[in-house]
Amino acid sequence: MSTWLLPENIADVLPSEARKIEELRRRLLDRFRAYGYEMVMPPLLEYLESLLTGSGRDLNLRTFKLVDQLSGRTLGLRADMTPQVARIDAHLLNRQGVTRLCYAGNVLHTRPRGLHATREQIQIGAEIYGHAGLEADLEIQQLMLDALRLSGLTKVRLDLCHAGVLAALIETDPAAAALGDSLYEALAGKDVPTLAELTADLAPVTRDALRTLPSLYGDASVLDEARKRLPALDGITRALDDLAFLIGEIDGGELMIDLADLGGYAYHTGVMFSAYVDGVPNAVARGGRYDKVGKAFGRARAATGFSLDLREVARISPVEARSSAILAPWRHDEALCAAVAALRDAGEVVIQALPGHEHTMDEFACDRVLVERNGAWVVETRV
Amino acid sequence: MSTWLLPENIADVLPSEARKIEELRRRLLDRFRAYGYEMVMPPLLEYLESLLTGSGRDLNLRTFKLVDQLSGRTLGLRADMTPQVARIDAHLLNRQGVTRLCYAGNVLHTRPRGLHATREQIQIGAEIYGHAGLEADLEIQQLMLDALRLSGLTKVRLDLCHAGVLAALIETDPAAAALGDSLYEALAGKDVPTLAELTADLAPVTRDALRTLPSLYGDASVLDEARKRLPALDGITRALDDLAFLIGEIDGGELMIDLADLGGYAYHTGVMFSAYVDGVPNAVARGGRYDKVGKAFGRARAATGFSLDLREVARISPVEARSSAILAPWRHDEALCAAVAALRDAGEVVIQALPGHEHTMDEFACDRVLVERNGAWVVETRV
Repeated sequence: MSTWLLPENIADVLPSEARKIEELRRRLLDRFRAYGYEMVMPPLLEYLESLLTGSGRDLNLRTFKLVDQLSGRTLGLRADMTPQVARIDAHLLNRQGVTRLCYAGNVLHTRPRGLHATREQIQIGAEIYGHAGLEADLEIQQLMLDALRLSGLTKVRLDLCHAGVLAALIETDPAAAALGDSLYEALAGKDVPTLAELTADLAPVTRDALRTLPSLYGDASVLDEARKRLPALDGITRALDDLAFLIGEIDGGELMIDLADLGGYAYHTGVMFSAYVDGVPNAVARGGRYDKVGKAFGRARAATGFSLDLREVARISPVEARSSAILAPWRHDEALCAAVAALRDAGEVVIQALPGHEHTMDEFACDRVLVERNGAWVVETRV
Repeated sequence: MSTWLLPENIADVLPSEARKIEELRRRLLDRFRAYGYEMVMPPLLEYLESLLTGSGRDLNLRTFKLVDQLSGRTLGLRADMTPQVARIDAHLLNRQGVTRLCYAGNVLHTRPRGLHATREQIQIGAEIYGHAGLEADLEIQQLMLDALRLSGLTKVRLDLCHAGVLAALIETDPAAAALGDSLYEALAGKDVPTLAELTADLAPVTRDALRTLPSLYGDASVLDEARKRLPALDGITRALDDLAFLIGEIDGGELMIDLADLGGYAYHTGVMFSAYVDGVPNAVARGGRYDKVGKAFGRARAATGFSLDLREVARISPVEARSSAILAPWRHDEALCAAVAALRDAGEVVIQALPGHEHTMDEFACDRVLVERNGAWVVETRV
């Protein structure tokens, strides 16, 4: 076996891609900070029960398990950082007011989401806790759009959904609740045949409503359509009002309503949203409200947030990272050392060609050289 | 069981510490880049054989293992990134000339190094491949000292060692080679009684030399002492010459020779070094030459590098991260939104107080407020 082979759907990130990821990582974290989001770094490993608290079966299947030699207990390698950050808000920070947190870190999945999908993503995101009002949803959505704009993704479509629609339908019909994950999957995949099959034995009002959801997709007029075609349950009316408010407030991006877009790890409770760009089939960023997650950690807090995979956004981003550099010789010379140090302090990339390797510096784009002229070291354009 | 409990020696990083780590991470990566080091991001998980290639038993014991559902094979969660980066140089980049690479990422250990040590470090480091000369060792050592200076650690002591001394002794005496890891540990721990016991049955010349090593510690004069007291083997003479060259060239930091300081994962082949600061018992950064590692990946390349744990350096660093911010109201007002966006674009932190939470913004240091004066939004000092 070749020791350089990597596991399937696991890959190294090489210099040009890594530089781009690092550039975007900084832009996004700086933007989160500019909105007042404080960074936290939850651990890669936790007890499995903590990692899976409040989440669905899907996350369990996607989480790598291993044994802790110190405790003999099962640990999980995080597959999603959102519940970890909710734990930090609920238990560690324990603040009364609004708390804004952000994070960036690797997450791992036992199985890839698709044939060529990576099992190791770099999840970056922001969460706001302690405010149940739509102002928090709005701030998170604006922040996500801002982050995508800073990633060079200018034509973004924002799809809005609301977990309250399905929750209201299920609440009035326990038979629908029993369908569980299959129902979520059929709706999220707009799988109309499966949906027809699953809902065949439900009460007509629930059945019709569920079968209608995949077609409730389009611009703001979909909300009027939904008010006509869905039952007038309190939860549904409130959900549609919420969406109408956000459609009116969000600045930038093409806005769409998609009442069947119930992706994610099934811990959402309110407005949910996904951002799409041309030519990329899956959402590039998604988020939503998940007011219940903190409860499992001893403190129910209103919560909403979003996240994206930095590797995927870097792949499609047109942002170019700087690569100009100065080539300098290697010599035992104090003036040379001082010149090199000063250039580096000024933010320049200075590469010293080690003895015997003067002519093999083809990897960095050295467009300038440091040369000695009349006893002084000066930077000149490389010819 | 409480879902918020974390495994032993695993901890969340909360905002103030996270901000400092992030600040230092950027400074160090920027400095690596200023020296021409290109960033790579190897994966957290690899096949176990790849991760442990060329390394010692110690790394195996410290590596978490888990099963890959896709292949049924055993994966390791990396405990050290150095062999991964060597694999990238040897196999993926496959360049002929000098290659400079750097990295920053989490590593995990099954067991902590001490009672209060973390099992999750943030390893950051730089490696140079393809140059066997001491100029490469010198560059890496200067880069490490530069990185520590930028971390605010001004009084750094650099201890130099050379794997060639022990290698030469072992080469002439197979009985010493058989002592394996125990010998390394006794020397690294300057455990004189154990060393006496281990070496009791060796040939007198090897025995005396090994027992002498722990005392060969001090300033440059130790090199003369070593020339007198150690056997005049070619390997030893070369090693001492190497150290004498570096002592003469390194700029900055207090320099010490410590011929028994053979820590790390036992893959070193040439000059090794450790940086210490006052009040911290363990090395804050270490590195050295490990020319053999690439061979296992199909390409023997000269290699030297260093790394440090960013969490530990952040803990002892006096660097303060910026925390000033502007408090702004939340209102449906386009002029306000524009003012907030402009301030954020200019690099300011602007926190919008969500309705009902105007008086609970005590976590961020909001020293200024955004207020409306005669129809315009202006920043004023907070009273």
